[in-house]
Amino acid sequence: MSLIVTGSIGIDSIEAPTGNVNDVLGGSSIYFAAAASFFGPVRLVGAVGDDFPSRFLESFRHFNVDLTGLEQRQGSKTFRWRGRYHANMNNRDTLEVQLNVLAEKLPPVPDVYKDSQYIFLANTHPAGQLDLLSNFPNRRIVVADTMDLWIETERPTLLKLLAQIDGLVLNDSEAFQLTGKTNIVRAAEAVCEMGPKFVVIKKGEHGAFLKMDDHLVALPAFAARDVVDPTGAGDSFAGGMMGYLAATGDLSIASVRKAMAYGTIVASYNIESFSLGRLQEITRQDIDQRLEHFSRMLAV
Amino acid sequence: MSLIVTGSIGIDSIEAPTGNVNDVLGGSSIYFAAAASFFGPVRLVGAVGDDFPSRFLESFRHFNVDLTGLEQRQGSKTFRWRGRYHANMNNRDTLEVQLNVLAEKLPPVPDVYKDSQYIFLANTHPAGQLDLLSNFPNRRIVVADTMDLWIETERPTLLKLLAQIDGLVLNDSEAFQLTGKTNIVRAAEAVCEMGPKFVVIKKGEHGAFLKMDDHLVALPAFAARDVVDPTGAGDSFAGGMMGYLAATGDLSIASVRKAMAYGTIVASYNIESFSLGRLQEITRQDIDQRLEHFSRMLAV
Repeated sequence: MSLIVTGSIGIDSIEAPTGNVNDVLGGSSIYFAAAASFFGPVRLVGAVGDDFPSRFLESFRHFNVDLTGLEQRQGSKTFRWRGRYHANMNNRDTLEVQLNVLAEKLPPVPDVYKDSQYIFLANTHPAGQLDLLSNFPNRRIVVADTMDLWIETERPTLLKLLAQIDGLVLNDSEAFQLTGKTNIVRAAEAVCEMGPKFVVIKKGEHGAFLKMDDHLVALPAFAARDVVDPTGAGDSFAGGMMGYLAATGDLSIASVRKAMAYGTIVASYNIESFSLGRLQEITRQDIDQRLEHFSRMLAV
Repeated sequence: MSLIVTGSIGIDSIEAPTGNVNDVLGGSSIYFAAAASFFGPVRLVGAVGDDFPSRFLESFRHFNVDLTGLEQRQGSKTFRWRGRYHANMNNRDTLEVQLNVLAEKLPPVPDVYKDSQYIFLANTHPAGQLDLLSNFPNRRIVVADTMDLWIETERPTLLKLLAQIDGLVLNDSEAFQLTGKTNIVRAAEAVCEMGPKFVVIKKGEHGAFLKMDDHLVALPAFAARDVVDPTGAGDSFAGGMMGYLAATGDLSIASVRKAMAYGTIVASYNIESFSLGRLQEITRQDIDQRLEHFSRMLAV
């Protein structure tokens, strides 16, 4: 498999009912890459500043992620995010964002990455996502994430991107915003009319919804009693999903459904700790065991 | 099977983005009984007023429901409800409630019903639910529904009821209100500590959640593209679930999970029309076919 991810790498500070942490490793591509690496090697493209702690790199070596494409840019600062979760852990407020290096030019894609076949464009400016795409002439499956900001401010560029990708992953509120629909099936249909072969609509603690061809699939989340930190749940979901797809190269409905289930399971581990704590502790075997449990629960 | 249901029988008027209807058959026990009757005969206890249209009785004869326990009380008026759904169909405002006969004494349980083994106490005052229970010495499985009003105003009586039932069915917001928890797993655990062997937490378009013994089961809703009227979704869910349990008499986790799936499917048909329109058109075969589709969708 030759899976590549591009997106943010950040230093997060989080306040939650379960505790507070300052200056931990975060960012969409970090959660994605760690999650996807359970299924095979992952290539990462991204930039950090000269303030990026070397201990983060050390801890990240635990995962099967190729960091050739990670640029540490002198004179720049790393993206920072500070957020606070509400009591129910489902809602959060962003207290502070420092875009820093994310507002600068994108890091170059190393030549050795250009044969990548499986591309995940984690959430960033759609113009940047489009630019990146052109680096991968052998691409087989391209999946992108996006967010409310780009839907609102960069719709024409986003629509151009949608015409060139195989799958879109986004939250339910974003799907409604993008399509003007209020029903999830109709929103999914409308997204697919914009280009993607499939769309996965993430519903947080309520699971995820897939439309691909004539197939509709709803999966619940894996019931979590002890949510420590939901940060990165959506990115680790996408990582688990895309990791499985890249490992199998199979874009049948059965395969995409199973990929969603893997995403669900990896995300369920991710939220059991701050940052990558829990993902550092588990193995592919743990994921497969929990998937088996999930599968039995859904046997009706 | 000897399944009995008690609860409201009403005349509903509904405003929705899909249309408006005036004076249609509604009420918790009506939706429940119609749904459960696909699995076997259902006995109904309830009261209506002298304004209750005879055409409602005619249309209801379509279902396998014994109406011996239906009292048409002269000089009383039938319970009436008027509501308006928001654009997304998930939220609604109650515009008008006339309790009428529901505020009077409960109708008597006919002697021929007293051997009932499967009891569903649809949502009503918990003192009334407790009174009814004492009529069924041979009861095998008792499941109750409740609502925010009783949780707020009749907690001691409700807790007394919870100690005497096997299962509780309620909405997620009600489960949080009852237990003071904000996490669904913890809320379910807290409900089971109050007495019931199992609890089913309904999440509307997001499906339902079960805790029984050490088992946790989350099921999604069946994806609906065309929701005409969500009224009675929760009651028809409970009806499908309890109908299956009463037909099998099996309270194993596999059986309760399958019962939840049947509830999900019957509810998915119910919301395709106002009142009982769609449930009058379908057969058990339709339900089994959609269940098979649902089951395939969940095979991961």
